[in-house]
Parts: sequence; C-alpha cells; structure tokens
Amino acid sequence: MITSDELILISVDDHLVEPPDMFDAHIPAKYADRAPKVVRTENGDDVWTFEGAVIPNVGLNAVAGRPKEEYGVEPTAFDEMRPGCYDVHERVKDMSAAGVLGSMNFPSFPGFSGRLFSAIADKDLALAVIQAYNDWHVDEWCGAYPDRFIPNPLPVLWDPHLAAAEVRRLAKKGVHSVTFTENPASLGYPSYHQEHWDPFWKACVDEDVVVSVHLGSSGQLAVTAPDAPVDVMITLQPMNICQAAADILWSRVIKQFPDIRFALTEGGTGWIPYFMERLDRTYDMHRAWTGQDFGDRLPSEVFREHFLTCFIADPVGVALRDHIGIDSICWELDYPHSDTSWPTPAEQLLAVAGDMTKAEIDKITHENAMRWYSFDPFAIRSRDSSTVGALRGEVAGHDVSIRSYDKGRYQRSGKGIEIAKVAAKATA
Amino acid sequence: MITSDELILISVDDHLVEPPDMFDAHIPAKYADRAPKVVRTENGDDVWTFEGAVIPNVGLNAVAGRPKEEYGVEPTAFDEMRPGCYDVHERVKDMSAAGVLGSMNFPSFPGFSGRLFSAIADKDLALAVIQAYNDWHVDEWCGAYPDRFIPNPLPVLWDPHLAAAEVRRLAKKGVHSVTFTENPASLGYPSYHQEHWDPFWKACVDEDVVVSVHLGSSGQLAVTAPDAPVDVMITLQPMNICQAAADILWSRVIKQFPDIRFALTEGGTGWIPYFMERLDRTYDMHRAWTGQDFGDRLPSEVFREHFLTCFIADPVGVALRDHIGIDSICWELDYPHSDTSWPTPAEQLLAVAGDMTKAEIDKITHENAMRWYSFDPFAIRSRDSSTVGALRGEVAGHDVSIRSYDKGRYQRSGKGIEIAKVAAKATA
Repeated sequence: MITSDELILISVDDHLVEPPDMFDAHIPAKYADRAPKVVRTENGDDVWTFEGAVIPNVGLNAVAGRPKEEYGVEPTAFDEMRPGCYDVHERVKDMSAAGVLGSMNFPSFPGFSGRLFSAIADKDLALAVIQAYNDWHVDEWCGAYPDRFIPNPLPVLWDPHLAAAEVRRLAKKGVHSVTFTENPASLGYPSYHQEHWDPFWKACVDEDVVVSVHLGSSGQLAVTAPDAPVDVMITLQPMNICQAAADILWSRVIKQFPDIRFALTEGGTGWIPYFMERLDRTYDMHRAWTGQDFGDRLPSEVFREHFLTCFIADPVGVALRDHIGIDSICWELDYPHSDTSWPTPAEQLLAVAGDMTKAEIDKITHENAMRWYSFDPFAIRSRDSSTVGALRGEVAGHDVSIRSYDKGRYQRSGKGIEIAKVAAKATA
Repeated sequence: MITSDELILISVDDHLVEPPDMFDAHIPAKYADRAPKVVRTENGDDVWTFEGAVIPNVGLNAVAGRPKEEYGVEPTAFDEMRPGCYDVHERVKDMSAAGVLGSMNFPSFPGFSGRLFSAIADKDLALAVIQAYNDWHVDEWCGAYPDRFIPNPLPVLWDPHLAAAEVRRLAKKGVHSVTFTENPASLGYPSYHQEHWDPFWKACVDEDVVVSVHLGSSGQLAVTAPDAPVDVMITLQPMNICQAAADILWSRVIKQFPDIRFALTEGGTGWIPYFMERLDRTYDMHRAWTGQDFGDRLPSEVFREHFLTCFIADPVGVALRDHIGIDSICWELDYPHSDTSWPTPAEQLLAVAGDMTKAEIDKITHENAMRWYSFDPFAIRSRDSSTVGALRGEVAGHDVSIRSYDKGRYQRSGKGIEIAKVAAKATA
C-alpha cells in the first residue's frame, strides 16, 4: 500500500497570477508605455489595463488558503491572495508544502489562451506583448526553478505563420506545451476545420509541443440562463470540454497531422468512457453518409492516442481507467482556484485511488506528464528528494493554514456571486 | 441466461411523424383554415406550413429501414419513409416486428416541446392547435392501442396557468407525461429559476405527470462551428442534456416541489456517474458561498430520485448501473431516427447487457417505465403475449428488410449533410 509521502506529484494544470512587474524586463522599450499595467481602483481592486480595456480581476479565482465561505471571484487585489499566486519563490514553497514536485501554469488575466492580447488592433504591439509574456513565463517564472515547472506559453491567435514561428522560437528554450483555445471559432478565428491553422499544427508536431486546451479558453462557459445559480456553471465546466474534444477529434487536424497531441485541461476523466462509446457509435451508425474515415481504427482508439486528460480527484475516472487508457491520464492540482485540493493533494488523491496499483498511480501522478510534456525533473534533482514526504520536509514550517482574507468588500454583500459570472466570462 | 425472445420492451423515447390529416377531427371549425397544413413543394418535399412559417422537414430524420448510406435529414416526403412513422397501425406492426411492446412518442414538426405552436402571436389559435394536437395524440394515436403507447402531449409554453390547465385536462384522459424543453430561457421564456412556472410544476405533481425533457428541445444543439462536420453534433447530442440536468437540479424547482420528476430523454446514461460526482464535489467545495442547501442529502441522491434516464445501448451505463441507480434507468428505441436499434433492439440490447441479472434487465426494459409513467399494458394484455418472441410471432411476415429509399434528390449531391444541420436546428 503506497503512502502519501511516497507519491511524486506533477500537476498538469495550475494557474499563475501575473505580477505587476512582469513586462518590465521583456517588453521592447518603444512599447514600455503601452504594455499592460496594474492599477488600483477606488474600490480597492487591482485591475490590469491594456489598450483601453480594463480586466476586472487580476486573480480570477485565486482562493487557495481561504475558508470555503470566502470562495468566489475575490480576491480582486494582490494583498487578498497568497503570495504563491504571483511570486514564484513563494509558489515553490506552496508546492513543496503540499508535496508537489512539478506544475504547469496557465495564465490568468489575458485569458487561458491569451485571447486578450491577440484581439487588439495593433498587431505589432500584440506580438511584442505576447513575446514579452512568454519570455517572462519561460525564462523568469519557470526558469527560476526548471525542475519544478513545465513551461506553457501563449499562442499567437491571429496569424498561423506567426503562431508557428513563436512555437519554434520557444521550442529552442525547451518548451513542449502551448496553451490554446477550445474553440477558435467562438473567438472569431477560423475553426479547427480549416486549413488555416496548418502551419501552427506543423510547428507543434515538428517541435514535439502539446496543444494544451484549457476549459473556458473559448470564452464560452456553460451558462444556461442569466439567472442560473453559479453552481450550474461550476458543475458543467469540466464536461463542457467534451465539445472541444468532439470538435477536434472529428476535424481534419488529427487526420492530417497524425503526431499532433492535445491536452484537455481541467476536464476531468469520468465522462470519457461514455464519450468514446458515443464516438464509436456515431462512427458505426453514420460514417456511411457523413464520410468520416479513420482507416482501420476506431475513433476511440484515435482519441486515446491524441488526447491527454486529467483530474484532481475523480473516483469514476479511477474506476474506469482501463476504458480511458492509463497512459493518457494525468493528475492536476488547479492551484490556486477553488477546485484545488491544495494543501493536501496527496491525501485527497489517495482517498480516491481505489484499487490502483503503484505502477498505475505513478503513471497518473507523474510518469505520463513527464512523457507527454518531455519534462524531466530528475535530470536536475534526485527522485528521492522529489517525493511528497521529502518536499514537505524541505519547507517544514511554511504556513499553509486556512485563514480568512475577508475584507468585507464582497462576501458579506453577496456581491461575490454576482461578479463571479461576469468576471469568469470576461476573463476566461 | 435470458434470451431476446423473453424480453419485454417498453421504449420511453420514439417519435411520430405527424400525418397531414391529424388536425381535421380536432381543430375547432373557426380555425380549420388556419391549422397547420402539409404542402408539397416543387422539389418534391412535403413541408408543414403554419401562420406563414414553412417547416422544412416533415420527418426530421425518419430513416428507419434505410441503408446507412441513405441516412441524413431525408426523408423530406411522406413517400420516402416507412408508413410506421405516421400511420399508427403500421407503427404498431413495426413495433411488434421488433418485439417492442410499448412506446412513448415525441413530436416532429412542432419541435420536441411544441415550441412552434407556442411561438405564434395569436394565442387563441396557439391554444386551439395545441389542444387539437394533444387530443389527436392522446385519443387517436395512443388511443388506438392503449396497451402500446404512453401518451406524451405538448405543453403550453407562454402561460404557466394555461400550461397547468392543459396538464390537468389531459390527466383526466390518463396522461402521465408531458414533453417540455431543456431550457425555457433559450426559447425566450423565464428560466427554471423563476417562480413563473410554479403553477405548471404543481399541476404535474398533483396529476403524477413526468416532465419529459428531450435533448434538442431548447432549439440549441451543440454546434461548435458552422463548418464543423455533422459528426460533432451527433456525438455531443446526448451529453449536452447534462446542461439541462444541472440547470434543473440546482434550481428552486426540485426544492419547492419535492415530488416533481423529470425524464432526460435520449440523453444516454454513461456520463451520469461522473456528473453526480461533479454535483457532489461542487456542493462540497462551494455551498458555503453559493448558499445551496439540500438538507441532509447529497445532490447526487436528489438527482437519482428526480430524474429518469435512458439509453438505446450503452455499455458504460450498464457497467455503472449501480452508480446511476437501477431504478431510474429506462430503455429507448428512438424509432425512426438514425440512432435507432430497430428492427433488432432486443439483440442489440442483450449484446451490451453484460452481467446484468434478469431482475435488472426487467427494470430497465419495462418495469421502470411502467412505474415512472404509470403505464400498465398488462391491465389490457397478458404478460405472456407481450414478450419480444410473442409480439414478433403476431406479425410474422411483416417486412422489416432494409431497403433503399434513395430518389437521388440529396444523397448523391451531398446535400443531405448540408441540410441536416439546418433542418435539425429549425425543427428540434
């Protein structure tokens, strides 16, 4: 029986909150004044401003370390969140204190696929900001602890040739993931069904880069009705990514680029066996008139090869791991968002591990992530010093206690729920 | 080991194609000229016309009996489909030839929740047409074979008091289901979160009427992009109903009307264990700030009591039947649509029955449907004469061979796929 101390944890989905000074060392001098800036509002919120847009929430949902009564879209100011959200040295302490060896971080204020930057009119500025962001992300944030972070930079969305060039530029720095959108069509770009994106796919294949598609990255969350309780949206978020999975699986991308790989980030796994069954039934019943052709393979087999999936704690996914495919399931922490299992991820994971063998647990906790993302922390640090027990020992005394951050600005007024939906829509 | 001949099959989801003369005996004389009419177009399509609207497809997807190469949204004319689609006597023969005892039928041209009728400006006419439709459906179609059909009339959508009155009127005829929409908000009506609908819910509870919510009844199918292959939409259809399930589960309806029951029609079942896990996790992580309260129960328990689910052939659902709850799973045939297992449903069901016991199979094939919908065919006919084997014997010689209906109007031009999406959107 494996103990929590023995686990080695690499999370394929966390978030960083961009610190105010992130662009200073990376934006070209001529754009220094036009780079995104943090401003504190009269209400006490910290907001990013960029080309006339105001992004209402620096942290999106950075609630790790708070009591659940204080969840919501606050914190909306840096001093209302754990420093581990925006300070990489504090982040690594928070990771170690939870026993987490490695982490891949998605953005916050530019949207999960950086759509804010790509959308502005001045494309020279857009490219400068994206490259500055990526240099900061890869060189400063991840570069400070190369054994602890899987780099995951932003794409260029408006030009597939520039997108390809940026992938190739970053690959030289050792990058093997790029965050992308669930659905470019919903952002106003050509869909997965157009040849448009081919230079980008080709660059990802050539450079062994996984296209990491985070739920909500299309800007479209599952909001059933304007007056629906926020619980509806929270419940549906992971399952909604099945739309992207179907869109990509049936698209020409998989057929034209047989080595392309996608990650369905924060999507959970328990729905996947039914989804694959549905893929195969659709193929069986309808291919004769729709013209789909996967040669001698079933769409479920194709799915299993091309898509990485992940969960925080998913008993149904664990029970169905053989249907899903044990080699494509990863674990995620989702720090600092409200679904996170921080600071006790190892314990929460083992609580749902059921009858998994150590070999299976090792695949899900770190081996699959290392292989899919070409990430090898053991080239830098020993395996023995990388376990939950060893890492926790390194930072003994680091404060991970749950404490109140309530300043009475939202929670008590109930405004937290109100702005949750607005900000989630605006920022995702 | 149970054989296919021994099964007793009651399907909770099939469709009728409305015959041209359906309103003749039921519409008040003053509206005879304004009732919906079937017109044959120059192209050879039969279309319904009503108050200036032209409904492009009488059958939606009535392809039962065709080779798969001819699937699509054709047939678009009555003479291109099996008479069992629109002639109740032929329908019963088609049912018997497949061994199916009972069937609940959803509409075709008015939309699955009859939204076409409710949407017109003249509400007196709308009510007259809905009541005529329902009288035809209950008295003529189902009434011709009360041992074979579970009545499933249309709701009144624009007025909850009229909706309640219509439920009560029909309940006097023995009706225990009403078709309704996944999402009234997407049709322009108040959402599930408003008190607006309370008179309707109260009537359904008082009269022991299940609210049967068919996928696509919101008029919103999962179309990821305009240029997405139709396979994407087909794959996603069943999973999309999880949006309705979450919307209703977290709404005030369940809390205010503890005896209300919903059916998630054509939604499959394999996704439900993950969905319930997600409900419970959302409750655990977020109730402290969202304010949800189910007393001493978990949302998954509440879901299991209030929602009937169904499948055509779902190996994952069968494997997870204990998670889902064996008492709320039903079987469906989906005749005459392209997902149907007609004319060999018993064989296809047993092929996925896995290790289910006879008692479990009996629940899924007929006992649950009988209990949920207060339907008792055995009050009219013996159980022995209701099995697959007995029914098939009754209509020995009835032609169920797969044959071509191709008239070269769509299939060869590829237009079938093109109009599939348009018509599905317009009609669902």
